[in-house]
Amino acid sequence: MDYASASPVDPRVSEAMLPFVSERPGNPSSIHFAGAEAREAVEFARRQVAELINAENPGEIVFTSGATESINMAIKGVAFRNADKGKRLITTTIEHMSVLNTVKLLTTRGFDATLVPVDGFGFVDPARVDEAITKDTTLISVSYANGEVGSVQPIKDIGKIAREHGAYLHVDGVAAVGRTPVDVRVDSIDLMSISSNDICGPKGVGALYVKKGVKIEPLIHGGGQERGLRSGSENVPGIVGFGKAAEMAGKEMSGEIARLKKFRDRMIREIGSGTKGAHLNGHPEKRLANNVNFRFDYIEGEALILRLNDMGIAAATSSACTSKTLEPSHVLRGMGVPPEEAQGTLLLTMGRWTSDEDVNYVLENVPGIVDLLRKMSPLNPETEA
Amino acid sequence: MDYASASPVDPRVSEAMLPFVSERPGNPSSIHFAGAEAREAVEFARRQVAELINAENPGEIVFTSGATESINMAIKGVAFRNADKGKRLITTTIEHMSVLNTVKLLTTRGFDATLVPVDGFGFVDPARVDEAITKDTTLISVSYANGEVGSVQPIKDIGKIAREHGAYLHVDGVAAVGRTPVDVRVDSIDLMSISSNDICGPKGVGALYVKKGVKIEPLIHGGGQERGLRSGSENVPGIVGFGKAAEMAGKEMSGEIARLKKFRDRMIREIGSGTKGAHLNGHPEKRLANNVNFRFDYIEGEALILRLNDMGIAAATSSACTSKTLEPSHVLRGMGVPPEEAQGTLLLTMGRWTSDEDVNYVLENVPGIVDLLRKMSPLNPETEA
Repeated sequence: MDYASASPVDPRVSEAMLPFVSERPGNPSSIHFAGAEAREAVEFARRQVAELINAENPGEIVFTSGATESINMAIKGVAFRNADKGKRLITTTIEHMSVLNTVKLLTTRGFDATLVPVDGFGFVDPARVDEAITKDTTLISVSYANGEVGSVQPIKDIGKIAREHGAYLHVDGVAAVGRTPVDVRVDSIDLMSISSNDICGPKGVGALYVKKGVKIEPLIHGGGQERGLRSGSENVPGIVGFGKAAEMAGKEMSGEIARLKKFRDRMIREIGSGTKGAHLNGHPEKRLANNVNFRFDYIEGEALILRLNDMGIAAATSSACTSKTLEPSHVLRGMGVPPEEAQGTLLLTMGRWTSDEDVNYVLENVPGIVDLLRKMSPLNPETEA
Repeated sequence: MDYASASPVDPRVSEAMLPFVSERPGNPSSIHFAGAEAREAVEFARRQVAELINAENPGEIVFTSGATESINMAIKGVAFRNADKGKRLITTTIEHMSVLNTVKLLTTRGFDATLVPVDGFGFVDPARVDEAITKDTTLISVSYANGEVGSVQPIKDIGKIAREHGAYLHVDGVAAVGRTPVDVRVDSIDLMSISSNDICGPKGVGALYVKKGVKIEPLIHGGGQERGLRSGSENVPGIVGFGKAAEMAGKEMSGEIARLKKFRDRMIREIGSGTKGAHLNGHPEKRLANNVNFRFDYIEGEALILRLNDMGIAAATSSACTSKTLEPSHVLRGMGVPPEEAQGTLLLTMGRWTSDEDVNYVLENVPGIVDLLRKMSPLNPETEA
């Protein structure tokens, strides 16, 4: 129930990767036979990833070490390369920390940033982006879907605004790609960060879609791999696995969405009605099919996660990337949830191996644990002293 | 015979990685059980890598996506973070392209660079570094050993000079770590880039040693993993495999050095004496145990590699990272080899699975192929028209 933090690699993916781990250890830049094999395998994977997001040309896919690198590369790369045109960046208050901290770093380097607010369900209003955009804006960065509350943004409308004003649109596609149909051409997306592990591919690999003609400076310089945009010997097995995972995600997506939506709606309904003081975070329907996020009065998320952990349920209280800090989720705060409530959240994210039994087990246990914790909570006015 | 481009992963390494691919897909930042398992595995690997280079504290090892990222992080990270102290960087003319292109990028951002020359064997003279160093120098970047000609640099002496002048020393350890004993404490190294695949670990992972107290800015911002120095969910299987590879490299290094040295010396002796117009690149003895590099009069490296390829011998003509450009090796040029000669090189790098039979096969075939190509060469004054 914590697919958003880490997903198991699909056995079909690891099977595709294995030959490139030991038997065919080529470097795609070598001119001999082992190099040619590796090169072909990488280019095949590039087509598989391009197809998943309907990129016009596989050459628009740049392989990286993961979504965080892709996001850094996109934002810093556009900012620095286009600094002569302007130094303003637009993003939202509920982006992943890799977006927010990259933008923050740039504000120490002479760039200005506007953080557009979201509504109570976690949606960006394109009109607010339109208000924020200025002549010196070179980049708008918005996530396709929010990883914590599952809200899917009106990317197409934001893309149009970016085009009209001559700014680039970067989309953090980590939570959405492979879980909801994403078409970079229909949505006028210029750059998009994609994670492999989030679609049951291997860790340590990701991609940045860079539309043909988009001007960007590399983040990592060196031997000039990936058309000069990302140097470093290619992680061939990782890339091969990512390609296979992309192919499978594309084929199986519509069935998976239908399957997970049933689980999601059942959990939202039953936790919402069966648990005292439960509040759904985000929109009841307009959210990713795999995402359930509740907050409970008088309960701290961490205590809840640890109790569920004892029952064998892996869950999260906000994104894993920030859960160590124990600060209230900036996503919920951005949606207007008061800080004391933004700490009591339960984030359940489902995936390929989530079963009826898993959902039953969660539903059998969550209400009882929440009740128990509430009775013990010093914050609860009903708690006996 | 091309271990420098890509090495097969040791089966003991892939065995260690496998459980973390599918069965234990935790994110080290998660607070539940799967997160704890992943966290422990990553910290175990950190100790294994720290031990290989005798780091004082495992916390000084920062995991990255590979050596190119590590090099970028070290050089850009020190340069930007310490720009208030000075903006001069020192490196050498024979560094890997990831060093040279990173330094080049920095010269477009207000930094100055001094490239210290090397002698005809590819050695850096510490006295030349001492001459080049100025008050505003914040970083010296020198490779421990050169990947093309195998020259092992006087790092300890360069480290002393750096210390005396208050500059940091970054060492590109890719070609040396695991192939020759490297001790960051004895050598006064402040930062060192390490590759996993070069020690028969998986691709897509590497490390940067950052000595405690060294001030550096992150290259990749986000969720604050790796003590805030390298954001992005950890590539757990890759890190686990890298750790295992480091442990094995440490244990087996002395035996491997002795074994490969015999192969190296035999190849240098027999190719040198048995092949017309053969010139060894680099020093006959003071070179890495796994490295053989020859140039042949009137022969282009690429033609030679392709012929060897047809015989089932994977070889390189310079580092894989630059072989696509077909330019004469900048390493040989830096050593004073004229451009027309710097194109006719044969780089053979050996590793864990290089056998007597492999060496025999190379020695049976190389002289004949070289002779054949020379007879056909339009550059050869003896060629019949």
